[in-house]
Amino acid sequence: MNMPPTPPARARSFSAARAALEDLFGDRFSVNRTICEQHANTTTWIAPDAPDAVAFPVTSGEVQAAVRICAASGVPVIGFGAGSSFEGHVNAPLGGLCLDMSRMNRVLAVHPEDLDCVVEPGVTRRQLEAELRDRGLFFPVDPGADATLGGMASTRASGTMAVQHGTMMHNVIAMKVVLPDGELISTGRRARKSAAGYDLTRLFIGAEGTLGIITELTLKLQGIPEATSSGVCSFPDVRTACSAAIAAIQAGIPVARVEFVDEVQIGICNAYSKMDLPEVPHLFVEFCGSANSVREQSALFGDIVRDHGGGEFAWALQSEDRRRLWRGRHDVFWAAKSFRPGASVIVTDVCVPVSRLAECLAETRADIDRFGLIAPIVGHVGDGNFHTMPLIRMDDAEEVARASAFLERLSHRALSMEGTCTGEHGIGTGKKGCMAAEHGDRGVELMRTIKRAIDPGNIMNPGKVV
Amino acid sequence: MNMPPTPPARARSFSAARAALEDLFGDRFSVNRTICEQHANTTTWIAPDAPDAVAFPVTSGEVQAAVRICAASGVPVIGFGAGSSFEGHVNAPLGGLCLDMSRMNRVLAVHPEDLDCVVEPGVTRRQLEAELRDRGLFFPVDPGADATLGGMASTRASGTMAVQHGTMMHNVIAMKVVLPDGELISTGRRARKSAAGYDLTRLFIGAEGTLGIITELTLKLQGIPEATSSGVCSFPDVRTACSAAIAAIQAGIPVARVEFVDEVQIGICNAYSKMDLPEVPHLFVEFCGSANSVREQSALFGDIVRDHGGGEFAWALQSEDRRRLWRGRHDVFWAAKSFRPGASVIVTDVCVPVSRLAECLAETRADIDRFGLIAPIVGHVGDGNFHTMPLIRMDDAEEVARASAFLERLSHRALSMEGTCTGEHGIGTGKKGCMAAEHGDRGVELMRTIKRAIDPGNIMNPGKVV
Repeated sequence: MNMPPTPPARARSFSAARAALEDLFGDRFSVNRTICEQHANTTTWIAPDAPDAVAFPVTSGEVQAAVRICAASGVPVIGFGAGSSFEGHVNAPLGGLCLDMSRMNRVLAVHPEDLDCVVEPGVTRRQLEAELRDRGLFFPVDPGADATLGGMASTRASGTMAVQHGTMMHNVIAMKVVLPDGELISTGRRARKSAAGYDLTRLFIGAEGTLGIITELTLKLQGIPEATSSGVCSFPDVRTACSAAIAAIQAGIPVARVEFVDEVQIGICNAYSKMDLPEVPHLFVEFCGSANSVREQSALFGDIVRDHGGGEFAWALQSEDRRRLWRGRHDVFWAAKSFRPGASVIVTDVCVPVSRLAECLAETRADIDRFGLIAPIVGHVGDGNFHTMPLIRMDDAEEVARASAFLERLSHRALSMEGTCTGEHGIGTGKKGCMAAEHGDRGVELMRTIKRAIDPGNIMNPGKVV
Repeated sequence: MNMPPTPPARARSFSAARAALEDLFGDRFSVNRTICEQHANTTTWIAPDAPDAVAFPVTSGEVQAAVRICAASGVPVIGFGAGSSFEGHVNAPLGGLCLDMSRMNRVLAVHPEDLDCVVEPGVTRRQLEAELRDRGLFFPVDPGADATLGGMASTRASGTMAVQHGTMMHNVIAMKVVLPDGELISTGRRARKSAAGYDLTRLFIGAEGTLGIITELTLKLQGIPEATSSGVCSFPDVRTACSAAIAAIQAGIPVARVEFVDEVQIGICNAYSKMDLPEVPHLFVEFCGSANSVREQSALFGDIVRDHGGGEFAWALQSEDRRRLWRGRHDVFWAAKSFRPGASVIVTDVCVPVSRLAECLAETRADIDRFGLIAPIVGHVGDGNFHTMPLIRMDDAEEVARASAFLERLSHRALSMEGTCTGEHGIGTGKKGCMAAEHGDRGVELMRTIKRAIDPGNIMNPGKVV
């Protein structure tokens, strides 16, 4: 079996590259400790591990030049978007150069007839939303955080709208990528589909920067629908909530979002977002389309909910009410953080076939209680994807140990139900221990074979994924 | 730059493997010339090139054993589904063993709650349709031919329903694949999405059997909609037909199919399928959903067509009428074949951004006329994907030369419009000459790097794609 790629010798390699990088970037290059530490992952419990330097490229030519300098000395190159990932993706365990892509943030073209746009990787989700709104268009991947499009592609992000529109895997048409030797390739053309050779676009989506640095993305867009209707509804238990969502999808009702929020999280949301919901499991749903079809879908879904023992729907028909409702859903991370001051929020992520979701959620809730943890649960129930958020005092070693044991059991529970250890957050360093259980030794070996072939010097985000 | 992989020495290698393969497969192994020639590609003008032998595995264990035997002697292994590909994919230019997967044709599981199923690669599209119909489910990739699901995945097939449901890239959840060393891997789990490492599923979709042999597929299914409405409408010219289709998609009308059929093909269809349509460009469309939404979509589309100068819609509301309508569309290949007895039908395939489609179609029609060819045009206009079908007397060298020149110009016209040389048929040997123009030398080199790393002995369908 192949061994994991060899790490480069840290200190020697960086000092050899430093002068050339300073020349290249001028005052857009920094070895300031604070800046370097800001570029190590902070929204997770994985300890930060700062790079040796941070540079802020503004062109793909600069990215190419930087990668060539680093390649010559075996210096690691770590791509950085908004730093909102959860699994230690932007840590630099072997040091190296962090390329902060936030200044490559132009929307280069919008093609309304083709329903696509071309953007630089540092464009954020909200920035893109604002730039597209006046044209009646939107990009349908919404991971919650105001992540960059480059980061979202690198982690194969998805979120609340994936049930209808798919993940980054489905919504990127093509990319430009700087390879580990500094060469720039296009992974595909602007046509909406192609059968021309290996799918290079999908190779780099979810590769977490371990095969190259994304410098441009062509994205599929959608027209903003004529009408949208959002609502919230309570259920006696997790099983009835899941069954109602599954029945609606099976019936072919085109649900735009269907989010599960458990009783613990509802209590937290009530406190944080000034809501007033009964502390039982809820579904947050949304329908989009013509005014008629949204009315029809909402009514059909209401019938299904009643048949499954759910309560009455509270519909938010005005856009202001809808925003408040989804703000409550999107703020779960900050709500949870404020619920136990001083605690860190460990945001987990697993995904199972939807038929196993209720069982997986119920077992997970029982496990939370058994381990004596405080942990709300929210989920993209249409995909079988859910998150628990244990609130952990990191200075309490015994509590950290309990949380670790809980997390390991959670991943293996998902795997035992034909699921995955991560539906949308990625592997980083945090989930590397699950890779062999998920893909088998030979599957992981195949990934390593690809990594070694494309990045023989192991300079691209080393230590992540494989 | 990497060179293309080296071909193995043909005769020596096969004779070394033959006895072991005979032992393995017994009477499911044949070196009969007729059988071998049947397994070389026949629905194209690329000259057939038969393998040395054909075997009919019934388990993935047999596929593994066969691949191990072939790997030991450097014997090529060519996967074969239904033989309906167009670009010489199943030819054996270096000889070797053809693995005809048609006897691995069981539907292993259907999971209605999860809207997925697990099938062997030899299951055909129509067989799957028949097995799912009673459960109210269908698989939404329809390339026209009754291809196998393994072949469809290998060529990244799509077809008339891709505008709504996507291609094989979007509709395969996971696969089992036998690698060039005979090891079996799962490319993913049954969860509907995952962010766990490199996208191995998409790596093998469209790889045309050059990286491994698919032995199982997990597919996304859809519920059969409550209502379906199909219709056909004439247009004064290609530009108005394309504009109407684009406007409908931009307006967010969820079109299930929208097919362009040009005036030449309409004439051929009238003769072959006993239709009676005016010989001008037409759109064939279909809407699916609830009875109300289908009514609404059809009416909205009718308005758009009128605004763009199209004629009245002839709607086929009964399923029998719908079947006849789509039969006319699906039979274009056979209709074209019968139109010029003795001629071969060269089925081309390019795809451009939809905003360029009308221009590309008009230039292509002018080029057909300039080269003095007989060639109808049909297209999946919602994707920007279209096919011309020059009817060529293969015994007329001068006509063949004209057709060749036309085809090369067609691919480069698509590429010059940010399109691809193949939207859905794949590369095989027929389109290899376009790969560098489409992907750049470095893009092709990256594909070769992957091919060499995974299949260092170059035994998997050698001579194709890269």
